[in-house]
Amino acid sequence: MSDMKPSPDTTTLLTALADVLEERLGADPGASYVAKLHHKGLDAILKKVGEEATETVMAAKDGDPRQIVYETADLWFHTLVLLAHCGLRPEDVLEELGRRFGLSGIDEKAARKG
Amino acid sequence: MSDMKPSPDTTTLLTALADVLEERLGADPGASYVAKLHHKGLDAILKKVGEEATETVMAAKDGDPRQIVYETADLWFHTLVLLAHCGLRPEDVLEELGRRFGLSGIDEKAARKG
Amino acid sequence: MSDMKPSPDTTTLLTALADVLEERLGADPGASYVAKLHHKGLDAILKKVGEEATETVMAAKDGDPRQIVYETADLWFHTLVLLAHCGLRPEDVLEELGRRFGLSGIDEKAARKG
Amino acid sequence: MSDMKPSPDTTTLLTALADVLEERLGADPGASYVAKLHHKGLDAILKKVGEEATETVMAAKDGDPRQIVYETADLWFHTLVLLAHCGLRPEDVLEELGRRFGLSGIDEKAARKG
Repeated sequence: MSDMKPSPDTTTLLTALADVLEERLGADPGASYVAKLHHKGLDAILKKVGEEATETVMAAKDGDPRQIVYETADLWFHTLVLLAHCGLRPEDVLEELGRRFGLSGIDEKAARKG
Repeated sequence: MSDMKPSPDTTTLLTALADVLEERLGADPGASYVAKLHHKGLDAILKKVGEEATETVMAAKDGDPRQIVYETADLWFHTLVLLAHCGLRPEDVLEELGRRFGLSGIDEKAARKG
Repeated sequence: MSDMKPSPDTTTLLTALADVLEERLGADPGASYVAKLHHKGLDAILKKVGEEATETVMAAKDGDPRQIVYETADLWFHTLVLLAHCGLRPEDVLEELGRRFGLSGIDEKAARKG
Repeated sequence: MSDMKPSPDTTTLLTALADVLEERLGADPGASYVAKLHHKGLDAILKKVGEEATETVMAAKDGDPRQIVYETADLWFHTLVLLAHCGLRPEDVLEELGRRFGLSGIDEKAARKG
């Protein structure tokens, strides 16, 4: 696991990934995992979100850094599929996070509870 | 919910947020929600990950876009706290996602199972 | 942890507990945890179900038998609160389980998928 | 959904089901869903617990009583598989619940937090 600062390639990755997911919503369900999930519908996507959250918890209990990264990626990925399914963008989520932690300098707990 | 393309401010947000979280790990548990969670330990953080995943599922079932964004932000936030607690970075997760969906053009399902 | 066969006291416990929960639905929210949860509504109950499932998973990963029993009790308890909130009974769930595994002798997997 | 009081057949069902599960732990993984899960190991069982908890939450949000009963049965079933896998019995969990709500008449919240 690196602690490198982000390169331009990684910083735009969520946006690029969301673009890919949007395109695949309309793809052949037999040819794309994302299209298949989208075709199955909201409940199938949410089931995966719950499942991947559980697997992230299990990986963290095992204490294996590679597995924590892998399962967190799976969890984020399926929330990105959820966002795409609902016509939402990761930028919306980042904007919300930025609002909480942003330039305003307000304490994050106050922001969460406010 | 906007479908705007990312501004420079939002694209570096995960990195900036991870920097903030790392700083707060060492803060006074009484003054920072993040420091308090970190001080309570891994199980307290994982309990929140499970809880926020459930709340994301509930928001999606309610079909309220603002709530879906809000709860997804809570879920991502607590996975970022988990990563910081484990000495990991969001860039590690984005790198994993990039590897799966990247320039190589390999099918994402094969990448997930591979 | 005992492996004793059930006494009459324990075998009727779910029914007795469901009776208690039904009574407390109408109690003063300030005087009863169950009444308070019921008063807060379905989402508060479901949040607890998700949270206790996560804690059961964590206890199992820790491998502590006493904690597994304790967290499973918490999980079952909150599903019993959910059933009471929805006007349902544990007997309904047991009947469903009995149907799957019952005297008919059908394979449980076929029953689950059927 | 009935609100009938339990018959002797249903009150002993958890014990009978636990006996069946214990027997199947040693069965051919190809012939029994329970044996297959047990053979896959703890993580496979816990993944199902998390998944079924999510499905119970989704069923409750949909408000369909039959589906709530069905998914709660799935959740209880997989916790029973977990107990069997760990050498524990549902009677252990019922005993814990009885202790909290039992003849002692102590308030359940105090018992939970105590």
